[in-house]
Amino acid sequence: MNYTDASIAEIDSAIAAAKAAFPIYRRISDVNRAAFLEAISREIMALGDELIQSACAESNLPEARITGERGRTTGQIQAFADFISNPVWKKEIHDPAQPDRAPLPKPDLFQTQIPLGPVAVFGASNFPLAFSVAGGDTISALAAGCPVVFKAHPAHPKTGELVGSAISKAVASCGLPAGVFALIHGSSNEVGSHLVQHPAIQAVGFTGSYRGGKALYDLAVRRPYPIPVYAEMGSVNPVILLSNKIAENPAALAAGLAGSVCLGVGQFCTNPGLIILQKKDASFLDLLATELDKLPLGTFLTPGIAAAYTSGVANLAKHAKKLTSRELPSPALFVADAATANHAILEEVFGPCTVAILVEDESELLTFIESMDGQLTGTIHGTKAEISEELVDALLQKVGRLLFNGFPTGVEVSGAMVHGGPFPATTDSRSTSVGTQAIYRFMRMVCLQNRL
Amino acid sequence: MNYTDASIAEIDSAIAAAKAAFPIYRRISDVNRAAFLEAISREIMALGDELIQSACAESNLPEARITGERGRTTGQIQAFADFISNPVWKKEIHDPAQPDRAPLPKPDLFQTQIPLGPVAVFGASNFPLAFSVAGGDTISALAAGCPVVFKAHPAHPKTGELVGSAISKAVASCGLPAGVFALIHGSSNEVGSHLVQHPAIQAVGFTGSYRGGKALYDLAVRRPYPIPVYAEMGSVNPVILLSNKIAENPAALAAGLAGSVCLGVGQFCTNPGLIILQKKDASFLDLLATELDKLPLGTFLTPGIAAAYTSGVANLAKHAKKLTSRELPSPALFVADAATANHAILEEVFGPCTVAILVEDESELLTFIESMDGQLTGTIHGTKAEISEELVDALLQKVGRLLFNGFPTGVEVSGAMVHGGPFPATTDSRSTSVGTQAIYRFMRMVCLQNRL
Repeated sequence: MNYTDASIAEIDSAIAAAKAAFPIYRRISDVNRAAFLEAISREIMALGDELIQSACAESNLPEARITGERGRTTGQIQAFADFISNPVWKKEIHDPAQPDRAPLPKPDLFQTQIPLGPVAVFGASNFPLAFSVAGGDTISALAAGCPVVFKAHPAHPKTGELVGSAISKAVASCGLPAGVFALIHGSSNEVGSHLVQHPAIQAVGFTGSYRGGKALYDLAVRRPYPIPVYAEMGSVNPVILLSNKIAENPAALAAGLAGSVCLGVGQFCTNPGLIILQKKDASFLDLLATELDKLPLGTFLTPGIAAAYTSGVANLAKHAKKLTSRELPSPALFVADAATANHAILEEVFGPCTVAILVEDESELLTFIESMDGQLTGTIHGTKAEISEELVDALLQKVGRLLFNGFPTGVEVSGAMVHGGPFPATTDSRSTSVGTQAIYRFMRMVCLQNRL
Repeated sequence: MNYTDASIAEIDSAIAAAKAAFPIYRRISDVNRAAFLEAISREIMALGDELIQSACAESNLPEARITGERGRTTGQIQAFADFISNPVWKKEIHDPAQPDRAPLPKPDLFQTQIPLGPVAVFGASNFPLAFSVAGGDTISALAAGCPVVFKAHPAHPKTGELVGSAISKAVASCGLPAGVFALIHGSSNEVGSHLVQHPAIQAVGFTGSYRGGKALYDLAVRRPYPIPVYAEMGSVNPVILLSNKIAENPAALAAGLAGSVCLGVGQFCTNPGLIILQKKDASFLDLLATELDKLPLGTFLTPGIAAAYTSGVANLAKHAKKLTSRELPSPALFVADAATANHAILEEVFGPCTVAILVEDESELLTFIESMDGQLTGTIHGTKAEISEELVDALLQKVGRLLFNGFPTGVEVSGAMVHGGPFPATTDSRSTSVGTQAIYRFMRMVCLQNRL
């Protein structure tokens, strides 16, 4: 089957349907919207093995991973269905009237949240189910009461169509207007560009590259009516290794870190691409290199990502010393001194490679952190005694999620999760794209005064 | 005294001090930050009559109004001090670990809010105390833990200096770094432009004109590291009058509406500049015109605002029929048909004038609402029976606050208040600049995973 780019007329038609559906969709009850989400989940499961096989074939990811990712996707849908089933989710605030207050009576004020309107969502290539057509962006927007126009990722068009058809079946079986959801294809920038600039689109969700996300952001803020863009653009996710923690069990730490670097062929937004440790602990890197040398490279999601990895690691090799022993491309570890490091080596290379930065002491560590870009995650491996308040504070200012003695590649779907962070990790540091708080990206507060 | 524009070096120095103060200020306890806010309030009161006289002289507003506004300002400060004294304000979410969960253990996740960093605030001319140096933007940013660099409004520089000195005294008496607050003057655009583009500034608060707010927004989103801009830029605040409600007590409605139009010489962001009613009810406008003809014009805040009002109403007179009888400039009522109205008449004219739009029926009313720009407020005067769900929904999509049978000019400082709304009323519809929820504009969520 051929998945041709949507024409301008087709995009306009999908958006017009979303706009027409919005006044109806925004008024259906939370209970009915939760039932709709659960119907989506059932329809996805009903796709059965065809979905699994399609996603495996289009992503080169193994069946166990895809099956697990389907579970994450339906679990995520259930989490939003449950979330909007408890009325506290609307964060309503009621300040009762005080008619006798002097000098002026106080009116009755009631604050609640309303959906923004039709949302454009762009799926990621690296999670063909959980961050794609029925992923967190789509489901949080639908849960909020916003119709979604989804631009399928060209890396997995068939999987996208399958999941899109599941959502459309759920739309129909729940008696909702068809415009509540639409899927369009577009391998060219024109499709996304037209979508984001359409006056009826009220917000954008995106997971992908910095180049892609920033381009959409730049279009959205230049519209006559600017709209919010929630672009999650990845980061290098620094992991700081402190001396006493390294000494506790260096072999286990090296094995765990190597596993995190290579998870999913290193194609996670939260892949640890930067390690920071003191010079005196540099011998730990030999252990880490040994572990990485044991791990297979794996098959990348797309030939484009594979080519970018090959050129990315070749470029790193020009500016930093390679510690792993295999020929590139392979899982790779590089090392450089903080004082002399070329900042080009801090740019994300998507895949299973990581750069170690050596610092003299905590003072140089803090200076280095201060110089870093915003990150999705930051991790500290340290004993409680050796982690200073200054270090925690400095790293927290740069990240959306701060981990202690763990690895950043697992992103739990939960109320407390923050999958976000300061620019350029995302275009809106005040939000998360994973977990139930993601719903508020597509809502705004309103106040009803003396409502009848 | 002469209030010269800050030089680039002076602005940089204020921002550098704010940046240096931030790591210290963000770590002081909520209790101590609340005490600091209360100290600001005491220092403002200690300015005594000098402050009142200065604000009256610089704003042309009467003493009773300025005294009342000082009460609003200190009341607002107390509201934020109280708000951060209750730990629930940080909206913490804790998902405990499930170490035995299969297939993967669940980590301990803890979500909280952290301050963004140094904030630039631009004061408004129309509230020289409550929306200026120690107004809601400054106080909500300080309450959040963000240092503030404040650009004083050139319409009331002495009042600004007085309040700025009160804040600086509170900074000193609380033992905080001096950089927690700075006031700079700037009548040129260069000062504001440099401030907003400085890499250490992390967010912007603004109340004023569309032109000013949009210019700051455009600069902020084009920075190498874009930052959020909360610009409240005013609106025409439509008031919809339905037939049965008009019939109940037309004289009282006309008097109330005329009073709201003329409150503070019409210089409120929430001034009702647009009235919508059915053609068959057009005779109500004669009553309203009669009421407006009784009210004095008053003295505008600045000669510039007076001149803009004179040219604004002259322009309206070209495109709509004037119903009030006095020579312009005066409080004024214009009328036009929805079907033929030139959209130029829907642009805000800052001052005590309002435009009535006549519609045939509810269908034309809904179409007209759909065509409107975003608004801070929308008001419906109607009996419960005649207000349709469609009307409420349509208007709610356009506003931050929806009032029933009231007047929009009073903006209560309260937890449930929303003083915000879709563009171009503001540059960020997801926020409020009045009320305690305003604090979250200057914070972002972070997640601590397996914190020690």
